[in-house]
Amino acid sequence: MTEKFPSKLLENAVNEFSKLPGIGRKTALRLVLHLLKQDENEVEAFGNSLIHLRNEIRHCKICHNISDTDTCHLCSQPGRNASIICVVENIRDVMAIENTRQFNGLYHVLGGIISPMDGVGPADLEINSLIDRVRDGKVEEIILALSTTMEGDTTNFFIFRKLKGFSVKISTLARGVSIGDELEYADEITLGRSIRNRTDFESSLSQ
Amino acid sequence: MTEKFPSKLLENAVNEFSKLPGIGRKTALRLVLHLLKQDENEVEAFGNSLIHLRNEIRHCKICHNISDTDTCHLCSQPGRNASIICVVENIRDVMAIENTRQFNGLYHVLGGIISPMDGVGPADLEINSLIDRVRDGKVEEIILALSTTMEGDTTNFFIFRKLKGFSVKISTLARGVSIGDELEYADEITLGRSIRNRTDFESSLSQ
Repeated sequence: MTEKFPSKLLENAVNEFSKLPGIGRKTALRLVLHLLKQDENEVEAFGNSLIHLRNEIRHCKICHNISDTDTCHLCSQPGRNASIICVVENIRDVMAIENTRQFNGLYHVLGGIISPMDGVGPADLEINSLIDRVRDGKVEEIILALSTTMEGDTTNFFIFRKLKGFSVKISTLARGVSIGDELEYADEITLGRSIRNRTDFESSLSQ
Repeated sequence: MTEKFPSKLLENAVNEFSKLPGIGRKTALRLVLHLLKQDENEVEAFGNSLIHLRNEIRHCKICHNISDTDTCHLCSQPGRNASIICVVENIRDVMAIENTRQFNGLYHVLGGIISPMDGVGPADLEINSLIDRVRDGKVEEIILALSTTMEGDTTNFFIFRKLKGFSVKISTLARGVSIGDELEYADEITLGRSIRNRTDFESSLSQ
């Protein structure tokens, strides 16, 4: 579709919006026309929020989580257990685990997973800084919480081998049938694993 | 869902994105994290394009189309036939008709249609300025190209009555079975109207 825009400014804004993943030209135009109807201050706040975000946001120097400060609010929180580190792919995983309120340790955000197809190798991820944190000696357990894809498994195994020489317990998330799911609809691999890794009934009650 | 954001800047940007129509919190977060991975200049260009858009865009003083200048590129184009004005609801309709390359007249953008449910009355639309253009006497035909909803019909009729006293031809878009559509799937009203308003076969060949 070759569109003729009545305005260069409009065209620019539509072009910018349609660079976003999952936003086509028609949606972009709809969003831009919506913004045009909004208050001038509102749109300025929107634009500025993006500029400030990109220019001012930092990554925590310890766990590489997104942060407004040098050390993120989790790493600098006094009540958290610094001897357990949960290794995740990105900050969305941190937010998901934090929302459960079941974990009181710290995180390590890799910034991705090893994926030769996408040209992501171990050197592109925050793996060395994870080894450094373990080398410091205060860490007792590493929880590998990456996705169960081939890339996730590869990354898990890579980290597992790098950490083998250290006296640190390495665990991974329990996999099993989701709570509320019917057994007959669970896939075989998940169901199989949840039988093999069955847990004590009494301890499951207290959760 | 009460999310805990690791950063106020991130939270701000997500809030702004999720104000857009059709963008939920999860999509907003996905878009913001995408922007975080982009180049600083890219994101700044995005933010600025929105700010410039809202602050600098104007509406053509003749047809009320969106424009970068006082008079839009259509109204100021010398080759266009100023004696025919096509009345549309919004600038998307202008773009749609322009894309057909079948119309060489000018437009008049109402900025909406009469809709008591949404609190939009005739005074909220650019109807008086349309009457003024007709009063100038150079206009020979007005094409009403509003949608065939109850609101569109109401607006059409309102404009029709306002223009009754002037010696101007008032026409409307041809409605009929879409090209490529099978008759059996066309709705009765459309099919009925396309039989009543049947056109000369020979003249349909030249289109």
